[in-house]
Amino acid sequence: MKEIKLFCPGTIANVSCGFDVLGLCLDTTGDEMVIRKVDTPGVKITKIIGQDLPLATEKNVAGVAVLAMLEKLNNTTDGFEIEIYKNIKPGSGIGSSAASSAGAVYGVNELLGKPFSNHDLIEFAMKGEELASGVPHADNVAPALLGGFTLVRSTSPLDVIKLNTPSLLYATVIHPQIEVKTADARQILKSKLRLKTAITQWGNIGALVSALYTEDYELLSRSLHDEIVEPIRSILIPAFDKVKEECKNAGALGSGISGSGPSIFALSKGEETAMKVAEAMKAVYDKVGVAYDVHISKINDQGIKIL
Amino acid sequence: MKEIKLFCPGTIANVSCGFDVLGLCLDTTGDEMVIRKVDTPGVKITKIIGQDLPLATEKNVAGVAVLAMLEKLNNTTDGFEIEIYKNIKPGSGIGSSAASSAGAVYGVNELLGKPFSNHDLIEFAMKGEELASGVPHADNVAPALLGGFTLVRSTSPLDVIKLNTPSLLYATVIHPQIEVKTADARQILKSKLRLKTAITQWGNIGALVSALYTEDYELLSRSLHDEIVEPIRSILIPAFDKVKEECKNAGALGSGISGSGPSIFALSKGEETAMKVAEAMKAVYDKVGVAYDVHISKINDQGIKIL
Repeated sequence: MKEIKLFCPGTIANVSCGFDVLGLCLDTTGDEMVIRKVDTPGVKITKIIGQDLPLATEKNVAGVAVLAMLEKLNNTTDGFEIEIYKNIKPGSGIGSSAASSAGAVYGVNELLGKPFSNHDLIEFAMKGEELASGVPHADNVAPALLGGFTLVRSTSPLDVIKLNTPSLLYATVIHPQIEVKTADARQILKSKLRLKTAITQWGNIGALVSALYTEDYELLSRSLHDEIVEPIRSILIPAFDKVKEECKNAGALGSGISGSGPSIFALSKGEETAMKVAEAMKAVYDKVGVAYDVHISKINDQGIKIL
Repeated sequence: MKEIKLFCPGTIANVSCGFDVLGLCLDTTGDEMVIRKVDTPGVKITKIIGQDLPLATEKNVAGVAVLAMLEKLNNTTDGFEIEIYKNIKPGSGIGSSAASSAGAVYGVNELLGKPFSNHDLIEFAMKGEELASGVPHADNVAPALLGGFTLVRSTSPLDVIKLNTPSLLYATVIHPQIEVKTADARQILKSKLRLKTAITQWGNIGALVSALYTEDYELLSRSLHDEIVEPIRSILIPAFDKVKEECKNAGALGSGISGSGPSIFALSKGEETAMKVAEAMKAVYDKVGVAYDVHISKINDQGIKIL
């Protein structure tokens, strides 16, 4: 294989109670990427359509991720050209950088005959996340690479678990057109918390993981709750509480901040409810006068797809 | 039915990373209890064999639990006599008070024709825990009543989930003959913790719950880890670090403090390993010169049993 074309999905990190550990993969929201094996060694980003992002390999998240991978292989002979067709807006909170870095390492791994497992690739893709936000986190690249719901038990050593994905689960995401940088959203968090609050959180995350396996949508709904990060970060998001309230009224199982925001996600049982939730979200921002994008997607259990 | 005889199992609360939310039920370690319907209304503890515990209904954990249940039913006409045959030592950390309070409400519920579900009974049994330790916690009474592994998502409103129990899982428990009061063990905990530490903990609890469903013993092993409570409470337990080390050397998946101690539990895949772990634990305390009891038990997926 000389060339590969990929769908690189958007992802929702944190998923309410799973701050820094949980993530899920979207199905119909994502970038496309073409990766071509060429004779000149090294990595070259030849084209980025849709967003104004750096082409220089060392400054591009896809570039640094692939460089980390080639370095691990001591590969100084192979060369790759990457074209990126961005649909996910940087700073939207649905894993724009992760889609590019995960997609790039996935594609190059395919072209090299799969020297690495998808789990192995997470570590390289995290180099892209480090470039984008200063922190080499895995909670977007993991679901992009593994699909479905993922849990990052540990980043050092890396230990990522793919959880079960309930078959009727849909995500609705609204992206108000304001930018929140992951680095800024991280800075406002408090470094300490009460033990009592932490216990509530790990009760919820344990219950959420259980609900994913038993496909218990009611339990999923009860456990989609975050007392730690959401109350602080939601201040940065226009009309957050109102959107959340209307999601619930429209039948969503729960809602929260997608990644570090400003996108708000809701999970629903069934596509019909997910569409009603989208209408409810839109109505709030129409009233407030904030421009937005909306995505409705089944949870993508496969992750990155070869087109 | 006029009389019921019960096996009231010991339980392990917390289970390393699941402080205040996780618990599991033992199979061969527990008390027995006889409950008899009598003509005189009210609750009378007529006999306690094996331990010196208060017979006065209001001062006995079984008594207050049943009173709470009868109050909820507005039942002022039925009368019950309770005989308790204690095998679990109070203050051992394997749910001595929970066995009595859970057993009592379970038995009375049976004699009344089951007005309540086992999940409902947790709330009444928690009244016994409140009497015993000052805190109405559910992490021992829940596994006693539901069996297997349980997760307390919330105590108010009460929301307890029964998780899956891997079929080859065994617990080994060693009880060094010193007493640690739950109330004391609670007091030494810090009220705040670092967000980073909390994230590690909820990554582990999420992974542990996943491992229970997928019966992934290696993941279970990696996630049986507690950076918050164990480092503090283990100071109260003789030779804790050495016991833990020897459990690992003997092949245990992991080990930790049972409840608030001083008992130490280890989980193993298969009975043979659980027995080796018991020998390893005993060897440590033989050397140190601390008297002990040891229990080896399959995880009891049923909970309280009618004999």
